[in-house]
Amino acid sequence: MTVLKDYLDTRHYTEQLCKHLQPEDYTPQSACFASPPKWHIAHTTWFFEEMILKVYVPGYTVFDASFGYLFNSYYNSLGERIKRENRGLITRPNHKRIFEYRAHVDAKIVSLLNEEVSDKILKMIVLGINHEQQHQELLLTDLKYTFSHNPTYPKFWETTLVEQDNEAPGWIPIEAGIYAIGHDSKAFCYDNELSKHRVFLEPFEISEHLVSNASYMDFINDGGYENPAYWLDQGWQWIQQENIKKPLYWKGIKGSWHQYTLSGLKPLDPKHPIAHVSFYEAAAFAQWAGYRLPTEFEWEVASHQLQWGKRWEWTNSAYLPYPNFKIAEGAAGEYNGKFMINQMVLRGASTATSKNHSRPTYRNFFPAETQWQVTGIRLAK
Amino acid sequence: MTVLKDYLDTRHYTEQLCKHLQPEDYTPQSACFASPPKWHIAHTTWFFEEMILKVYVPGYTVFDASFGYLFNSYYNSLGERIKRENRGLITRPNHKRIFEYRAHVDAKIVSLLNEEVSDKILKMIVLGINHEQQHQELLLTDLKYTFSHNPTYPKFWETTLVEQDNEAPGWIPIEAGIYAIGHDSKAFCYDNELSKHRVFLEPFEISEHLVSNASYMDFINDGGYENPAYWLDQGWQWIQQENIKKPLYWKGIKGSWHQYTLSGLKPLDPKHPIAHVSFYEAAAFAQWAGYRLPTEFEWEVASHQLQWGKRWEWTNSAYLPYPNFKIAEGAAGEYNGKFMINQMVLRGASTATSKNHSRPTYRNFFPAETQWQVTGIRLAK
Amino acid sequence: MTVLKDYLDTRHYTEQLCKHLQPEDYTPQSACFASPPKWHIAHTTWFFEEMILKVYVPGYTVFDASFGYLFNSYYNSLGERIKRENRGLITRPNHKRIFEYRAHVDAKIVSLLNEEVSDKILKMIVLGINHEQQHQELLLTDLKYTFSHNPTYPKFWETTLVEQDNEAPGWIPIEAGIYAIGHDSKAFCYDNELSKHRVFLEPFEISEHLVSNASYMDFINDGGYENPAYWLDQGWQWIQQENIKKPLYWKGIKGSWHQYTLSGLKPLDPKHPIAHVSFYEAAAFAQWAGYRLPTEFEWEVASHQLQWGKRWEWTNSAYLPYPNFKIAEGAAGEYNGKFMINQMVLRGASTATSKNHSRPTYRNFFPAETQWQVTGIRLAK
Amino acid sequence: MTVLKDYLDTRHYTEQLCKHLQPEDYTPQSACFASPPKWHIAHTTWFFEEMILKVYVPGYTVFDASFGYLFNSYYNSLGERIKRENRGLITRPNHKRIFEYRAHVDAKIVSLLNEEVSDKILKMIVLGINHEQQHQELLLTDLKYTFSHNPTYPKFWETTLVEQDNEAPGWIPIEAGIYAIGHDSKAFCYDNELSKHRVFLEPFEISEHLVSNASYMDFINDGGYENPAYWLDQGWQWIQQENIKKPLYWKGIKGSWHQYTLSGLKPLDPKHPIAHVSFYEAAAFAQWAGYRLPTEFEWEVASHQLQWGKRWEWTNSAYLPYPNFKIAEGAAGEYNGKFMINQMVLRGASTATSKNHSRPTYRNFFPAETQWQVTGIRLAK
Repeated sequence: MTVLKDYLDTRHYTEQLCKHLQPEDYTPQSACFASPPKWHIAHTTWFFEEMILKVYVPGYTVFDASFGYLFNSYYNSLGERIKRENRGLITRPNHKRIFEYRAHVDAKIVSLLNEEVSDKILKMIVLGINHEQQHQELLLTDLKYTFSHNPTYPKFWETTLVEQDNEAPGWIPIEAGIYAIGHDSKAFCYDNELSKHRVFLEPFEISEHLVSNASYMDFINDGGYENPAYWLDQGWQWIQQENIKKPLYWKGIKGSWHQYTLSGLKPLDPKHPIAHVSFYEAAAFAQWAGYRLPTEFEWEVASHQLQWGKRWEWTNSAYLPYPNFKIAEGAAGEYNGKFMINQMVLRGASTATSKNHSRPTYRNFFPAETQWQVTGIRLAK
Repeated sequence: MTVLKDYLDTRHYTEQLCKHLQPEDYTPQSACFASPPKWHIAHTTWFFEEMILKVYVPGYTVFDASFGYLFNSYYNSLGERIKRENRGLITRPNHKRIFEYRAHVDAKIVSLLNEEVSDKILKMIVLGINHEQQHQELLLTDLKYTFSHNPTYPKFWETTLVEQDNEAPGWIPIEAGIYAIGHDSKAFCYDNELSKHRVFLEPFEISEHLVSNASYMDFINDGGYENPAYWLDQGWQWIQQENIKKPLYWKGIKGSWHQYTLSGLKPLDPKHPIAHVSFYEAAAFAQWAGYRLPTEFEWEVASHQLQWGKRWEWTNSAYLPYPNFKIAEGAAGEYNGKFMINQMVLRGASTATSKNHSRPTYRNFFPAETQWQVTGIRLAK
Repeated sequence: MTVLKDYLDTRHYTEQLCKHLQPEDYTPQSACFASPPKWHIAHTTWFFEEMILKVYVPGYTVFDASFGYLFNSYYNSLGERIKRENRGLITRPNHKRIFEYRAHVDAKIVSLLNEEVSDKILKMIVLGINHEQQHQELLLTDLKYTFSHNPTYPKFWETTLVEQDNEAPGWIPIEAGIYAIGHDSKAFCYDNELSKHRVFLEPFEISEHLVSNASYMDFINDGGYENPAYWLDQGWQWIQQENIKKPLYWKGIKGSWHQYTLSGLKPLDPKHPIAHVSFYEAAAFAQWAGYRLPTEFEWEVASHQLQWGKRWEWTNSAYLPYPNFKIAEGAAGEYNGKFMINQMVLRGASTATSKNHSRPTYRNFFPAETQWQVTGIRLAK
Repeated sequence: MTVLKDYLDTRHYTEQLCKHLQPEDYTPQSACFASPPKWHIAHTTWFFEEMILKVYVPGYTVFDASFGYLFNSYYNSLGERIKRENRGLITRPNHKRIFEYRAHVDAKIVSLLNEEVSDKILKMIVLGINHEQQHQELLLTDLKYTFSHNPTYPKFWETTLVEQDNEAPGWIPIEAGIYAIGHDSKAFCYDNELSKHRVFLEPFEISEHLVSNASYMDFINDGGYENPAYWLDQGWQWIQQENIKKPLYWKGIKGSWHQYTLSGLKPLDPKHPIAHVSFYEAAAFAQWAGYRLPTEFEWEVASHQLQWGKRWEWTNSAYLPYPNFKIAEGAAGEYNGKFMINQMVLRGASTATSKNHSRPTYRNFFPAETQWQVTGIRLAK
C-alpha cells in the first residue's frame, strides 16, 4: 500500500539524517526562523499525533501531555505553545525520548494504515508525510545556519550535495496566450496550488539555466553591492543595515571565495549555480544584468522546458491566493493561507529538497531578505 | 495654456492649505513615515528646482545650496540628504524663508512656461505638478497624525471633509474574460500604470459601495480583534504587539465611539465609510464577513460601475511591475519602481486627495500596516 | 524683598533667552532626554502653579486644565502626563499662549509675595526659582543638541559664552583626615546635599585646572579611542556601538577640528577646557594620562582651591544618598531621590549655568554616556 | 601542598556538578548574561592554559588552537573571541572533547605544581582556582535560568540547597567612627578588595537576619509593585516594561506561591529568606518597610555579628575602586577594574557559592536589574 510505504520511507529518511548528529546538535536555535533538529523531529511527529491519532483513534492516549505545548508550531486553533524564539532552550526531553515518541506514534499510524481507513484520514496522513518532507529540508538548512556560526565550521556529513555544472545560457521564448495555472488536484498538492485557473501572459523569454557563481562574482566585482540603482529601496536599506556584501555562506580567504557547506568550508566552484541569495540580491542581480526575474506564472508555463531542481528560484510574484482559493476547515486551514502577505514565491526545488517533494505547480514562499534557504536566480526578459 | 494654469492652481492650493497652520505646526515630525508641513512645501519646490531649473535653465543659480541636502526625499542619484527621521528637527530655514523659496522657483517656472518649451520639460513640469498633488494629500494625513498625539485634539480647519452616506449594498457581477489593464499614456500617468496589457479574469462580483462604520462596529463587537482565525499571521502579530483594537483615530468616550478629525474630535457617524484601517484590518474584516478583497485588476475592470473616490481602497494585489514596465532614465526613475516590494496596492482616491489627481488606472501603494492614510474597504466575492 | 526680586529676575532671564528663538524653534525635541524650549518655559511655570498656587491660594483657578497633563515632567504623585518622547509633537498651545500662561502665573505669585507668606510657601517658591534656573541651562543644552542636527549649523545668538584659557597645570595636595561634606542647610540647597556628615579621605592630589582641548587632542592622536585598555567595558562597548571617536560637537573640517556652538560652527581653541565629553571619555582620558578622576568628596574638600565654574566636572562617585538623607513629603519628594541609581555625580558649574546657581556642595548627576551637557575633566592622583 | 589540593578539589567539584547534566544541557544559552555549562567548564580550563601554561611552560602546545577563540570571555588583550550571544550555538567541540581538554590541562598543571614554582605562577594558579569557583556558582545560576524557560520544569538534582529558617529580627547598633575597610592581602583576595583603607561611618543599625519570603509577600500584598512611591525611577520603568510583579522564579499556582528550583517546582516556604530579587526590588522593599539597604562599608564593619552566607545581599553602594586601587599588568588587569560602572555591590555569599569562596571583604557586583543570581535583602537604618 503506497501511503504506508511513503509514510515509512519518509519517517526513515528523517532518522537517517539524524545519524550525522551528535547529542549537543539537537537543541540550539540560531535564529527565530531556524528551529533545532530536535524540534523538527518532534514537531513532525506531533503533527501525526495531533491531527490524526487524537482525532481519529478512539481512546488514544497522548504520549506526553507536555508535547502538545512544546511542539506546536503556529496553530492557534490547537492551543497555547512555547514562544518560537525559546525552542532552543528545551534541552529536555532529550533526543532519545523524542525517538521513543517517534516510535510510539509510528506504531499507531502503522496500525491505522493496516486497517481500512477513510479517505479523510488518508488525506491527512499524506499531508503529514509532505509536511515531514518540508521539515527534512528545513532541518538541513536550519542546521547549516547554526553550524555556520561556529568558527570551526563543523562537518555534518562528508557527502557533498551533488551539483551539476551550468551549460551555455539559452533563452526559451514563450508566446502570448491564456494558460492554465495551478494543480489539477487528483494527486496530492497543497491548498495554495488551487484552484486551477486561467492566466493571460504577454510574450516573454526565460533562461534555460540558473545563474552561476561566476556570473554573480562579475556582479560583485562590478560594484553590484555599492550601487543603489540596482536595488529595490528596501533591499538597499537591508544591505546597508546588515552590512551584506555577498551571498550568505561565502567567505573570502586569502583573496579567493570559499563557501560553508554541510561538509565544511570548500573553495567556491564558479560553474555551480549561485546559492543562498535573498530576493533582494536576485532582483539586483537581474537589474544589473539588464534582465528581470520571471513571474511564478511564467515559470510554471515554461517549466517543462527548464533545467530545474537545484535551487529554489525567486520569482517576481508575491505570495497571494489563487482565484477561488479555499481555506480548509480546522487546523489544516492554518497551513498556508495565513502567510499570504509580504512573502515572495519561489518555484522549483533544491539539492536539499526531499525526493518526491517537488512539482511544477509547487509554491514555496519566503520573505524577501531570506538567504538561509538554498535559493538561486533564473532570468527572464 | 493648461500646464501653466495647472501649475499655478496646484501651487496656490498648497499655500491655501498652509493658511490654517500656525508657525509651530510647520516643523514637528510624528513618525518616520510622516513628514512635517514645511518639508512638504519645500520638497515639492525642490523637485521643480532640481529636476527642471537646474537641468534645463542655463545659468540658473540655486536659491540656497543647503536646500538640496535638506529637501531631497529619497533620490540616491541626486546626492546626500538628511536622515528621514531628522526632518522634524530642521527649525531653520523657517517657514517664511520657504515661502520665499517657493516664490523664487515659481517665478522661474512661470518664465519658462511663458516661453516655448520642449515636450521633455513640459512632461517634467507635469510630473512635478502631480508630485505636489500627492504631497498635498500627505501634508494633510501627516499633520493629522501629528495632531492626533496632542491630547487637546487641535483643529486644523473647521470645514469637515464632506462624506456621503452609504446606500444599500449591491453586488456587481463581472464576466470572465481578457481585459485591458493600465493607462494608454496619452494623458499624464505615472510609469507604474504602464504598459497597458492584457489580464485574464475569472468571473467575480464586487460591491458597489464601501464598508460603513456601522459594519465595522459589528466586526469589533463580534470579537473581530480577538479571533486569530480572521487574521493573516503577520496581522495577528501586529495587533498583539501594537495593542490595536480599532481603527487609528477612533476613541471610545463614555461608551460611544468618536474619531479624531482635522476639525477636532467628532462623534462617529455609523453611515460613513470606515476610514484609517490597515490592510490587515481590511483583510480580517473581509474574512469575518465571508468575502474577500478585490484584486487591483478586478477593481480597475469594474471601476466605471463603482461609487469611488471617498477612500483609498485596499486591494489584495501586491505592488509589482506590469509587463514591460520601464524604469525611466535618471532621477525620475527612482519615482516608483524601487518601491515594488512588500507593499499592497490601493485603488480609488480619498476625501483628502487633491482635485484632478485620480483616475481608474492610478496605483497607490503602502505597507500592510498603514493606517494613517484615508483608507477604506470594498468587498468582492 | 529678596525672594520677590529673585523670582522676577529668574523669570525675566528665561524670557531674555527666548528672545533669540524663532517660533519654529519652540517645539521640536531631538532626543528623549532633550526637551523643547516651549516645554521648558511652560513646565517651570506649571511648577509654580501646581506646587504653590493650586495648594496655597484658596479659590485659584487653573489657567488651562490641559496644562497639568502637558507640562508635568515626572511627578507620579501629580497624575498622568504625556509620554516624554512626545513633547516635541505638541505644537499647540503655541508659544504666545505659553507666554500668556507665564504672565498669568507671575501675577499671582507676585500678589502672593506682596502679602505675608508662610515659610513653607517661601521655601517652595525658592525651590521653584532654583528649578527654573536648572531648566534655563537645560533649555540651552537641549536647544544646542537640536540645532546640531541641522546641517546649516544655526546660530542662536552671537555672543559666545566666555571661556578663559587654562594656565599651567598644578597639583593641589590634600592631607588625610575627617572632613565635613554636605550643606549646612541655612541657605537654600537641594535635599540631595543633606545631611551634612563626616567622610574620611586618604591623602590625594587634585589638579587646579581643567583638561584642555589640546590635551584631549593628544589623547585622540595617541589612539585613545582605539585602545580598549583605557576604557571601562561599558564605555568601550558604547564607543563601538555609537561609533564615537571625539567629543559630541567636534567636526573635522579639512583636517582641522571645529566645534558647533550656539553661535555657529567655530574653529576649536586648543587652550579652552574640553567640553561635551561623557563620563566614559573622561575616565578613559584619565586612565590614558596615568591619573584618575576625583571623587565628589575630594572635589568638595578641595573646591576652595580650584578654578571651577566653566565645566560640569565628572567625578568618580556614583549618585547615592548621603547618610540620613530624607525624602520630602509629597511631590517635592520626587525631585531628587528617585534618580539615585546608575548616574555619576558632576560637581562645579558650566558656562551655561545660570548666575547664583552654583555652590561647592551642589550635586549634579547624569548617566555615564551623557555628552550633551557642558561637561569637562579634572584629574586627581 | 595546599595549592595542588585546592586545585584538584576545585576541578573535581566542577565535574561532580556535571554529573547531573545530560548531553543536550551543555550547550544552550538562555540570555546574553547566562553562559552554557560547556562554556563554563571550557573557559575555566582555558584560563589555566592561557594565563599559566602558555606563559610559563616552555614548549607548551595548545590543546586546540580554536579554543582560544571559542572560550575567551572578555579579555581584549588576549585577542579576538566569538560574540558573547553566540556561545549557545557552539555544539562542537562536544562535551566529551571538553573533558579531554580538562584532563589535558589538569595533567600539565599538576606536573607544574609537583615541581618548585615561582610565587608569580602560584598566585596565578590560585587566581585560576578562585575564578573556577566563581564559574561553579554561575554554572548553577545560568543553568537554572535556562531550565526555568522549559515549561516542564526540569530537575537538575534532587538535593535541595539547604535553607535555614529566619529567626526573629534583631537590630545590631554600630557606633560612629573610623573603620578599616578592605583586605589585608596576605591570603588570596581579588584586586577590587584592595587597598585596605579608612572609612568614616556615621552611627547606624543593621538587621541580624535576612528578609523572609513571608515579609516579601506582605510587600506584594500591600501593593508594593503598584505604587511608584517605593521605587527608584529606573526601577519603576523596569517593572513596567518587563511586566515584573514578583521575584524571578515565583509562580502562582491555584492561588499559592511556588518557586522553580534546581530540584523542580516547589511550594514556597515563607520562613526562608527571599531569593532572586533585583536591586530595584530590594530598594523598593526597604522603602516600603521604612528602612534602607546598608552600604557595603556598613556591611563589612558589622559582618562578624551577622548571619550571612545564604544570599548575596544587595548593598546601596555602587561598585567603584577603593583608594589606591591598582589595575594589574596584563590580562589579569581586565579581571575586575573595567566593570566599575553602573553596577551595585553585593556582599556575603549564597547557597550556590562554592565552599571556601567567601569572606567579609568579598565584593560581588551586578547591574541593578539582576534577578538570576541568588540575591537577597538585609535592612539597615
